Amino acid sequence: MTPYSCMSREELEREYKSVLASYEACKAQGLNLNMARGKPAKKQLDLVSGLLTVLQKPEDCIDDGVDARNYGELAGLPCARAYWADMLGCKPEEVFVGGAASLNMMFDVVSRAYTHGLLHSPRPWCREEKVKFLCPSPGYDRHFQIGEFFGAELIPVPMTPTGPDMDLVEELVKDPQVKLIWTVPKYSNPDGIIYSEETIRRFANLKPAAPDFAIIWDNAYCVHEFKGDYVPFPDILSLCAEAGNPDMVYEFASTSKITFAGGGISCMAASEANIRYFTGIFGVQMISYDKVNQLRHVRYLKDKAHTLEIMKLHASVMAPKFECVAKWLNREIKPLGIAHWNDPKGGYFVSLFAMPGTAKRVWQLCKEAGVVMTGAGATYPYRNDPDDSNLRIAPSLPPVEELEKAMEVLCLSLRLAALEKLLR
Amino acid sequence: MTPYSCMSREELEREYKSVLASYEACKAQGLNLNMARGKPAKKQLDLVSGLLTVLQKPEDCIDDGVDARNYGELAGLPCARAYWADMLGCKPEEVFVGGAASLNMMFDVVSRAYTHGLLHSPRPWCREEKVKFLCPSPGYDRHFQIGEFFGAELIPVPMTPTGPDMDLVEELVKDPQVKLIWTVPKYSNPDGIIYSEETIRRFANLKPAAPDFAIIWDNAYCVHEFKGDYVPFPDILSLCAEAGNPDMVYEFASTSKITFAGGGISCMAASEANIRYFTGIFGVQMISYDKVNQLRHVRYLKDKAHTLEIMKLHASVMAPKFECVAKWLNREIKPLGIAHWNDPKGGYFVSLFAMPGTAKRVWQLCKEAGVVMTGAGATYPYRNDPDDSNLRIAPSLPPVEELEKAMEVLCLSLRLAALEKLLR
Repeated sequence: MTPYSCMSREELEREYKSVLASYEACKAQGLNLNMARGKPAKKQLDLVSGLLTVLQKPEDCIDDGVDARNYGELAGLPCARAYWADMLGCKPEEVFVGGAASLNMMFDVVSRAYTHGLLHSPRPWCREEKVKFLCPSPGYDRHFQIGEFFGAELIPVPMTPTGPDMDLVEELVKDPQVKLIWTVPKYSNPDGIIYSEETIRRFANLKPAAPDFAIIWDNAYCVHEFKGDYVPFPDILSLCAEAGNPDMVYEFASTSKITFAGGGISCMAASEANIRYFTGIFGVQMISYDKVNQLRHVRYLKDKAHTLEIMKLHASVMAPKFECVAKWLNREIKPLGIAHWNDPKGGYFVSLFAMPGTAKRVWQLCKEAGVVMTGAGATYPYRNDPDDSNLRIAPSLPPVEELEKAMEVLCLSLRLAALEKLLR
Repeated sequence: MTPYSCMSREELEREYKSVLASYEACKAQGLNLNMARGKPAKKQLDLVSGLLTVLQKPEDCIDDGVDARNYGELAGLPCARAYWADMLGCKPEEVFVGGAASLNMMFDVVSRAYTHGLLHSPRPWCREEKVKFLCPSPGYDRHFQIGEFFGAELIPVPMTPTGPDMDLVEELVKDPQVKLIWTVPKYSNPDGIIYSEETIRRFANLKPAAPDFAIIWDNAYCVHEFKGDYVPFPDILSLCAEAGNPDMVYEFASTSKITFAGGGISCMAASEANIRYFTGIFGVQMISYDKVNQLRHVRYLKDKAHTLEIMKLHASVMAPKFECVAKWLNREIKPLGIAHWNDPKGGYFVSLFAMPGTAKRVWQLCKEAGVVMTGAGATYPYRNDPDDSNLRIAPSLPPVEELEKAMEVLCLSLRLAALEKLLR
């Protein structure tokens, strides 16, 4: 296989005809495959069925004198706060355990920042002339969407192999209108990058102009290795405290990709002052979150050590899928020099950079052949990828047999879009 | 027993000494009883343990092709939407099934009204010069608290035996700053009043000046009879639609007092246009709510008919407690003419009107003798009962034996506070 950049026009035209024929043959199969969202596979969900029956009798529902079936304990069952503290390396008092979705808690924090302000806000953000959010990109579309929903100006920050470009972040936070940065520090969505210790240290030591600047530390994939051993990760709360910024960070995690997607438990970890502040605020909207599900999870998952054992089971389902993606890309695309991609060891995504100017076309070609991918551009603020290059591959949902077909379609689409561009 | 109003000062003084002695004797027992919140009793929670084990295996979690364990179906599992439609007498398309708390959904609706506006809002409520909420009083403290949190002006509306004073409501909604009214239409909190058909019809036919006026129809006790048969209740959605106000009402309900308090499922019922509007908005904060718990509930509760059978079991626990309250009040207080109260057939509360000017003192006397009641005044906006008279009795939590003691304390406190006032 010759790199496309080394092919003559004639060779490219021949290649185009050949790839088009293969693509049309694929299309004729009438596929209906989905690689759009980071959804766990049925096999993974089946692994954790023990969760369903861990609470059976009334006495099972009482923990340390607290009846999980009744109102109370707004900040979460003590055992659930302890579980998350173990998972994240912080203190139980620094944990607020919520409902099924950490995204909802992030939204609530931003929403309350707008209507009432954060702990150190001089005024609610809706009373500010302008509010800006930093968006390491490519990043998580649902993060960016929350900022857009509230009318913040979204500022992209390039990702590097060690995390967001910290020189730029340090510069940008000198602007008092910059109020927040979205992060996914471990197995970043979609790049699968683990922020380096240096990056994390620089986050903790930021000197933002805004007194209420917030780091949203979305530790969604904190124990989500699918290749190799668990990678220890520093506790951002204590690092921020040591740096004199105890109230700057809001960490989130959930069991959505440990037990059931959308049916797990979530948490926010933050300084005790922040937990106090938000317990007051959340007390207006809630009497208490679903403690039965909190207890069910704690009894089933037990602790971090046992959770890591369960994650090994998930890994056994996930790893072959990521290997399948890598196999196709390495075999079909790498020799052609028309794309590059990350090779993550955890998380839920492969970040693929197609030939600049072709991502939207690749997405469309995939769709026409029955393969749905996350929208091209979705990983950038305002869905605007300036290079029209990044595509997020979410291989977790389909079984490997289907994934093989989907990857065939994706590889043909990458080639076809590149050829169309080169021949234009 | 002679009514206090017919006693001479000397008789009152004698009575005071006697009641004080009894009160002090009670106090010396060092009681620690709670009648503050509408919490179900352990016995009730134990009745519905079948909920815990209704889903056991992976195949149990799939309903009509939808895997409840995975993301998707933001507006709720179709079977859960159908369940609530059956319960409330509306259409499944008019139902959005949420998480564990209807209060949280009400908060979210108000919060989004402030930040973005409702379907027919000319602008977000935070951009209005002033926003006013109508608060039928006595009412639910947590409703009022949401309005206060967002800085709305809370306007009390007196309750009558048939519901809120509708003459006044019809007059007040002519003010375009009046944007919302809180209601609990069946077994109102705390009065236990069922709004009359006439009241309901007048609600549906309101002609508010604000195009985005919202009726929050908190049908928290829709099937919560503890005495006598289920009382059918009209579907407010179709009445509003018939009156040309299809988008004016937002109905809420939950299973918090059917299954587990804070561990149930909730819903919002509204016009299809409103459901569409809010599905768009909720889609920013959520991927999907806990569908495993939704399915667990539908499989266990089945339908309205079966839910009503379960409510009969709850009634068997609840009724003796309300009988205990009535027994004490009828025996110890009625002959003295120092208080009156409602005699509800459903809901969770008895609304007690102590001698004007004594409710706060009664609350304090109860507290000093180890009996915690809902704060006096809590049932009015800004916790300000102009008559200092209303107290909310929540007899559901304590076992009858404890309730007997608590009622003894309450009756003695009512008498003591009245005597203090009369002797002042």
